[in-house]
Amino acid sequence: MGYRVAVVGATGLVGQQVMRLLEERRFPVSELRPLATARSAGRVVQFAGEQLEVREASAETLRGADFAFFAASGDVSRELAPVAARAGTVVIDKSNTFRLDPEVPLVVPEVNGDALAGHRNLIASPNCSTIQLVVVLKPILDAFGLRRVVVSTYQAVSGTGAAALEELEAATRADLEGRPFEPQVYPQPIAFNVLPHCDRFEDEAATLEEWKLVRESRKILGRPDLAVTATAVRVPVRVGHSEAVWLETERQADPAALREVLAAAPGVVVWDDPTRNLYPTPLQVAGRDEVFVGRIRRDPTAERAFWLWIVADNLRKGAATNAVQIAEALIRA
Amino acid sequence: MGYRVAVVGATGLVGQQVMRLLEERRFPVSELRPLATARSAGRVVQFAGEQLEVREASAETLRGADFAFFAASGDVSRELAPVAARAGTVVIDKSNTFRLDPEVPLVVPEVNGDALAGHRNLIASPNCSTIQLVVVLKPILDAFGLRRVVVSTYQAVSGTGAAALEELEAATRADLEGRPFEPQVYPQPIAFNVLPHCDRFEDEAATLEEWKLVRESRKILGRPDLAVTATAVRVPVRVGHSEAVWLETERQADPAALREVLAAAPGVVVWDDPTRNLYPTPLQVAGRDEVFVGRIRRDPTAERAFWLWIVADNLRKGAATNAVQIAEALIRA
Repeated sequence: MGYRVAVVGATGLVGQQVMRLLEERRFPVSELRPLATARSAGRVVQFAGEQLEVREASAETLRGADFAFFAASGDVSRELAPVAARAGTVVIDKSNTFRLDPEVPLVVPEVNGDALAGHRNLIASPNCSTIQLVVVLKPILDAFGLRRVVVSTYQAVSGTGAAALEELEAATRADLEGRPFEPQVYPQPIAFNVLPHCDRFEDEAATLEEWKLVRESRKILGRPDLAVTATAVRVPVRVGHSEAVWLETERQADPAALREVLAAAPGVVVWDDPTRNLYPTPLQVAGRDEVFVGRIRRDPTAERAFWLWIVADNLRKGAATNAVQIAEALIRA
Repeated sequence: MGYRVAVVGATGLVGQQVMRLLEERRFPVSELRPLATARSAGRVVQFAGEQLEVREASAETLRGADFAFFAASGDVSRELAPVAARAGTVVIDKSNTFRLDPEVPLVVPEVNGDALAGHRNLIASPNCSTIQLVVVLKPILDAFGLRRVVVSTYQAVSGTGAAALEELEAATRADLEGRPFEPQVYPQPIAFNVLPHCDRFEDEAATLEEWKLVRESRKILGRPDLAVTATAVRVPVRVGHSEAVWLETERQADPAALREVLAAAPGVVVWDDPTRNLYPTPLQVAGRDEVFVGRIRRDPTAERAFWLWIVADNLRKGAATNAVQIAEALIRA
């Protein structure tokens, strides 16, 4: 009659989105357990027309769940995900904790759904900026090969969480009213600004976000040597990550062939007609589950180089949609 | 005792900035003539503590000027710049009209000031996004050579003009108040959004802004075959263009050597220390005349590839400062 589903981080942006998607997509839920850290326990969330009280996530409250979507902090995942998995719950984890663990499949269903085979009850969902990239790279890799991928991102503040969304709102109001504003979430003001800094700096060179794009893309595409590199930039957008991607293919290609391959690819929508100013933007694709591509064109300075502009809802396909799609793939299997 | 200086487009963002800079930099002005199209004639502008009435730009009102800064539309430049130049006025033109004319020097003084030699009274100042790029590329080209340059821009709305600044302001207020807003300047809403579309589409592939970056960089750097390619994106920032630049050098280099070469380059300021979250952002560099660089790091997937993050005030170094610096170079010569 359905599955017992726990959502860990049920009061966060992604957890809330997971619950909406379970409803929207009619995932067969017999029981929904909204869980969170002690701080949020006792709050009430909505699911399928019911008011549900949020409980503290623990081995106890997770017990007996068929699926658990983890959309809380890395610490919560580290502590509870293996416990739940050992107890027989299939954990779909959105945190960074297990993504590079060779024992844990890192899955975007339309790209490497086959990696789910033989899973040990713990499956990682990739970083938001990685998901939309690999959904587009995969069909190109299969059709034309990939020599090199250079990515510049334009990432929405919702990727940082609810507090960042509030900071963008408050900072923008303060700016328009000429009031000073002291940023709390970001190291510099985000209103009317851009910051070449997403997540913490992992080393002197690059941020963790930039490394995630590299390492996760390689694992998902099964190409540990793929030459992919990124600069990750935060922009004053609420929802929707964009990526300007320059890539070289191994084999002969042209924009028309790329458009054709992408239009036929699962989860991809091509919006690409400069004569009608048609290209995806974050405001347009917020609320959609697909990955949108436009500005597909040749770089005339190289033999087989192309530009693409990729946009997706970072809370949906970049997070909650992908996690729910993993669960859907598992119950279909 | 000084020069008779005309400013064409004296009521626009760039023209206003030119007048402020002439004062700030103590350019020797004996007479300032604010000129504009008929629409703005009669308005009053400030210069050096005086109120000056704006007159309509014409052969007549330009006559006798030693210098004329053109910061109006391409049409105004096309009609009046050659007339003024023939009459003996040194014209410094900010429009796109003459930039690629082989008879017209396209100048960024710290990059190719020598191109001013033998000018015929008409000198073009490059596009905003080009200027900040070549100021940084030139010292790298000289020290290490350049094999390839891939640029993604994050461009402020002031690059489009005063009406775009007002649209960003109005659209943002409408959004925060939940009111609908119909964009007039941009094809889609610019508040809390990014648009992969600067200037008009020149062809099916690329925008004029993207082509300017390619063609102008090649001319200024004297490398007609330089492999440089760009995606130009508008972001909801008032002032300050940013660029994420991936480049390959011809000869061996490393981040420390790049930092050293850039720190010694004229017009460049290096802000690059991830341990202190130090990198330039548009809000920080607005009002400054230099070009700022940070996030200088190796792309470990290629032999001699590097990332840079370049930010400059598009109204100053990207427009007015560069134009005034051209005039300064001429009076020094």
